[in-house]
Amino acid sequence: MKLWIQNGWALLPGENGPEAKQADLYIDGDRIVGVGQAPEGFQPDRTLAAADKLVIPGLINCHTHNYMTLFRNSADDVPFEEWLFRRVMPREDRMTPEDAYWGAMLGIMEMLRTGTTCFNDMQMHIYQTTQAAVDSGIRAFIGRGLSGTATDEGGARRLREAIQEMERWQHHPRLRFTIAPHAPYSCDGAYLQQAAEEAEKRGLRLHIHLSESVSEVENLKKETGLSPIAYAEKLGLFRVPAIVAHCVQVDEKDIEILAENQVSVATNPASNMKLGNGFAPVPEMLAAGVNVCLGTDGASSNNSLNLFREMGLVTLIHKGNTRTATAVSAGEALEMCTTRAAKALGMERELGSIAVGKKADLAILNLQEPQLMPWNNLVSALCYSASGYEVETVLVDGEVVLENREFRHIDAERVYFEAAQRAKRLGET
Amino acid sequence: MKLWIQNGWALLPGENGPEAKQADLYIDGDRIVGVGQAPEGFQPDRTLAAADKLVIPGLINCHTHNYMTLFRNSADDVPFEEWLFRRVMPREDRMTPEDAYWGAMLGIMEMLRTGTTCFNDMQMHIYQTTQAAVDSGIRAFIGRGLSGTATDEGGARRLREAIQEMERWQHHPRLRFTIAPHAPYSCDGAYLQQAAEEAEKRGLRLHIHLSESVSEVENLKKETGLSPIAYAEKLGLFRVPAIVAHCVQVDEKDIEILAENQVSVATNPASNMKLGNGFAPVPEMLAAGVNVCLGTDGASSNNSLNLFREMGLVTLIHKGNTRTATAVSAGEALEMCTTRAAKALGMERELGSIAVGKKADLAILNLQEPQLMPWNNLVSALCYSASGYEVETVLVDGEVVLENREFRHIDAERVYFEAAQRAKRLGET
Repeated sequence: MKLWIQNGWALLPGENGPEAKQADLYIDGDRIVGVGQAPEGFQPDRTLAAADKLVIPGLINCHTHNYMTLFRNSADDVPFEEWLFRRVMPREDRMTPEDAYWGAMLGIMEMLRTGTTCFNDMQMHIYQTTQAAVDSGIRAFIGRGLSGTATDEGGARRLREAIQEMERWQHHPRLRFTIAPHAPYSCDGAYLQQAAEEAEKRGLRLHIHLSESVSEVENLKKETGLSPIAYAEKLGLFRVPAIVAHCVQVDEKDIEILAENQVSVATNPASNMKLGNGFAPVPEMLAAGVNVCLGTDGASSNNSLNLFREMGLVTLIHKGNTRTATAVSAGEALEMCTTRAAKALGMERELGSIAVGKKADLAILNLQEPQLMPWNNLVSALCYSASGYEVETVLVDGEVVLENREFRHIDAERVYFEAAQRAKRLGET
Repeated sequence: MKLWIQNGWALLPGENGPEAKQADLYIDGDRIVGVGQAPEGFQPDRTLAAADKLVIPGLINCHTHNYMTLFRNSADDVPFEEWLFRRVMPREDRMTPEDAYWGAMLGIMEMLRTGTTCFNDMQMHIYQTTQAAVDSGIRAFIGRGLSGTATDEGGARRLREAIQEMERWQHHPRLRFTIAPHAPYSCDGAYLQQAAEEAEKRGLRLHIHLSESVSEVENLKKETGLSPIAYAEKLGLFRVPAIVAHCVQVDEKDIEILAENQVSVATNPASNMKLGNGFAPVPEMLAAGVNVCLGTDGASSNNSLNLFREMGLVTLIHKGNTRTATAVSAGEALEMCTTRAAKALGMERELGSIAVGKKADLAILNLQEPQLMPWNNLVSALCYSASGYEVETVLVDGEVVLENREFRHIDAERVYFEAAQRAKRLGET
């Protein structure tokens, strides 16, 4: 299918970060084949009128637990232990694979609706999230959450499941897999090493939580004398390209390790604040050259999967926290869920910007909304003024999956019904 | 006109803050006359179907400079001096009254669209903002920004204009006026006292900026030995009910003064972060019994007039800043732009909650949106998950001013056209 996105604005790579320019876009199959200029002899099968619209690269959510949408708004304004042990874990224990499927579908709806075309997920019910990604048309990186030890049968089983699922779907154009050991407090050192070796052998990326809370760091230091970052380096985890979620409680030495090892950090501003963990040193990590990208974390700790909210947060909170109006710019926030995110996933040649040869993963926003007017600076508008619900149409792999705010492959009513019934059952004690 | 809002959910006052319950609402003229139960013999002229909708009290924006929407996104990620002296002030100097009118209209569109039914404004072009409020159907508290000295002609003229405008519109049902001296750094002490005396004489409220930045506090301390809060108390400003914007740089003693004098504080989280001023001590002010309410500030320092964003911020940033997951709850955030805001404006008997006898200022949200599902806790959902664009229909004084996301009294296309042309001219140097 050949598609012409006509007469609109596009967010394009500029010399100093992304810039909005007037440019028609031309798509052939899953690829962008023209920006501003049609390839010779291009005959579109379909034209999308885009006057007063802005086309942006589909946003990439670098860290989430997608199916946890079912627990959204069920554990707020409570201390961390109450949150985890009395609210989230009992619900997760009761969850069936079918629950996970409908929770994942609901999360995907929210993400597509707000311009996210790809997410990097870590979860227990791996088959259902994969199936939801396949069914909905979104792009996904799937990591089966690994916990346990190198010698227990559960740990070995989980790693086996991860590999099997990867092999099952290895030729799917929208799916990729990661090896996702949960954290040093839920995996022993030998198991973490085993996971990293598996990733290295198969050319996969590692997806892990590190240095989220003060107590996590203190406990590991007591046990090993090392910070989670130093511990991970010592175990050899960073020999493999890694996406590390959180990095809130990191010091200068940790930041050096992250930079030296070219580790990508997925910062999750809403989640880190909501659970009382504080502010990650994002300006310091950027200054040290760390590839910082953005994630929403799960809906049980956010309570949203909308990257526009995270873009607003990642700029504002660090300006506030460092009392510096120039800390973390709008352009940097956009890069954190586009170019930097693509790099984190090893997809910088395929995703993250609007350029000839890249995948046609795009979101089209309506600019005729009061909150975006006047168009003094559309990069600022995306970060500081947009809600995400200006997104009207979304393409993944060149396919229209959301059009005029309607889902093409998802029965929204059915998802709402299933999510409501299942959340109710999971909440009953 | 008698209106029945049928079969929906309503955000009602509960014992521990707002609660969402299923309740039909009955409106007669500008008043709510029934909650859950119709008054005897009630015959509606019109019925609004509200299944799968949530009715909330119209939100109240306690501090803004509404017409500055024209400068939205024109001065971001730059140091404060560059922002104020090189970007904002030159534009404001070039602004005509007509520019102010269209800027105010654009701001009102954004506010109504996101459920704000009343705003407390401070501006220079007072006539135009008043007219825009009258034309659009929104409720407004208007304060002509006062600056100068007790002896200069400019200062006297501005105070005279404020009074004249108030007298002109004193019988309008949706308009109220404040006396709005800008700040201690832009008004001398005698002028501030004159403003407070005028307010006292006429039974008006004072609206002022205090303790926004570190340098403001340091400069005033050098000059007078007093913090801005202590200085204002000493001048007698707090003998009049006051709404003080910002209070970012306040210490324990300042907070005591604010509490003792029953001053209302309008906190502006996005603006305070964006300009690098930091985090106001909101949890401490709440604990001391200060009436903290929420504002957006102007669109040149935010860059949004959406109170849903501010609700999310005021909860999250203080949890992050104090590393306490229980700091500032979703219910408290809602109160800050409903009941607490109404109290700040002296309208607690008229506005701020859904109750029999109160004004029918209401916003109706669609709950069938992925980001709000499942409905585990609708109070949390409003604060942590909603974008504000779930609002479909808005009533002010019992009149429908927005219906199914369309404005009843505003020609949106015209406002966009005027705002774009005028912003372009103002940005030319």
